[in-house]
Amino acid sequence: MVAKGRPVLHGPRSLILARGKRASRNRFYDVEALRNVTLPVLIVVGENDVLVVSIFVNPTQFGQGEDFDSYPRDLQGDLVRLEGVGADVVFAPRAESIYPKRYRTFVEVAEITEWLCGASRPGHFRGVATVVAKLFNLMKPHRAYFGQKDYQQTVVVRRLVADLNFDLTIVVLPTVREPDGLAMSSRNARLTPDQRRVAPVLYRSLRRSEEQIKGGERNATIILEGMREMIEADPLAQIDYLALCDPDTLKAVDRIEGPTLAAVAVRFGHTRLIDNILIAAP
Amino acid sequence: MVAKGRPVLHGPRSLILARGKRASRNRFYDVEALRNVTLPVLIVVGENDVLVVSIFVNPTQFGQGEDFDSYPRDLQGDLVRLEGVGADVVFAPRAESIYPKRYRTFVEVAEITEWLCGASRPGHFRGVATVVAKLFNLMKPHRAYFGQKDYQQTVVVRRLVADLNFDLTIVVLPTVREPDGLAMSSRNARLTPDQRRVAPVLYRSLRRSEEQIKGGERNATIILEGMREMIEADPLAQIDYLALCDPDTLKAVDRIEGPTLAAVAVRFGHTRLIDNILIAAP
Repeated sequence: MVAKGRPVLHGPRSLILARGKRASRNRFYDVEALRNVTLPVLIVVGENDVLVVSIFVNPTQFGQGEDFDSYPRDLQGDLVRLEGVGADVVFAPRAESIYPKRYRTFVEVAEITEWLCGASRPGHFRGVATVVAKLFNLMKPHRAYFGQKDYQQTVVVRRLVADLNFDLTIVVLPTVREPDGLAMSSRNARLTPDQRRVAPVLYRSLRRSEEQIKGGERNATIILEGMREMIEADPLAQIDYLALCDPDTLKAVDRIEGPTLAAVAVRFGHTRLIDNILIAAP
Repeated sequence: MVAKGRPVLHGPRSLILARGKRASRNRFYDVEALRNVTLPVLIVVGENDVLVVSIFVNPTQFGQGEDFDSYPRDLQGDLVRLEGVGADVVFAPRAESIYPKRYRTFVEVAEITEWLCGASRPGHFRGVATVVAKLFNLMKPHRAYFGQKDYQQTVVVRRLVADLNFDLTIVVLPTVREPDGLAMSSRNARLTPDQRRVAPVLYRSLRRSEEQIKGGERNATIILEGMREMIEADPLAQIDYLALCDPDTLKAVDRIEGPTLAAVAVRFGHTRLIDNILIAAP
């Protein structure tokens, strides 16, 4: 139980108080339940196994002309959906308390942020790295959970943690999918019925690349071309990028010789969706 | 007693172990003694009043063509000088352990880093903010001490602490001076005898500005002109900058109407010295 009878905290000071709270009982978090919470959340576990769920649509990770204003927000619904997860605290700060007027500091992770979503969304990962560093300092978690759907984000956060010597463990939770394969995302709520019908093509194209690799194909250009054809078969889907890359460095590979990340970003009108799968070494 | 019988730690892992150490007795740190340690040090106090002194010549805060290679280093001498300060641990990491090969993350504080030393040394405060964030995460201090001689650095670090929500207090220690007024600095060791003879002009020019303000002068241009004449009287001194500015925003003031920071940077050959004083509101 999270929401009912639990405070929703607004602001850093409240959060710091919440950290001193002792969990009233030992218990294990239901990771399956966590996986089914498909909010844009950061989940942190503190010293006494206090589970804090952060719900914050971070303005600094949205660029000019991006969908910050229209990004789906539903705090009351989120609280209901968080029931059963076992969170002790929901941290839902106001943007002004995270970025007050004199705010001037940013964290940048170079190189691995230059392509994929970083190329499509300049400044996005600077905003991500900055807010994550702040949330880590506010909550001082021992573990922090991120979803695999934002794979590049997990690489950036791991780099950030290693480079700035944060004393915590990053846990990556598998992507949660609708029955037709569409990765769950807050942005799915904005798809028109027609777009929603087409959207599972992201995952189908990823699975196709995996099948080709399992079938012996090693040439990345050929595999990407197959994905492109599949996605472009429907004019509602506009490809932002398709990539086969090294899962650690995120650099594009020409030949499939080891573990590979297949990643796609596709626009449906104003809604941009991403997805990825990790493909084992052939 | 610091050095004798105390380990000098090399590397983050050693440091984290050291943090768990309990001080064997309650005691007060001799702040006067700290003031007389004129090393390029960051001093942090951990949870159990463990005093850690960090000695690290940080490569990322030196620009191309600056004096990183020739910056005076004397670890054994530093350890002797630290005797009597009461430090529990000296943290003197190798650069490769602070910035390993895959290192890619930097912290930037905008605006207040654009002028004064930030203008003369592009990238300098990026390196400072980055290493300070790392040292804070490694040591998790409750208090961190910085010297007023690097006044802009103290403003940058305070901004960093507030913006990234570091849970600690910054303490600024007064500048320590030689009998003739020259602010103590590792770089003083590189002055030729002639340069050393001229170098107290930095402090004299600052005191002159203070006297003028006490005497009723309010026009910053006139005060700066007087400082310039005094410093340029000796051809060995090449002015890098002279400034009268707001102590909080570091923005240059035209008229002296409140508390004012007077700051100077002067080159003597390849050696660049800085100094500053805070002048009370007239």
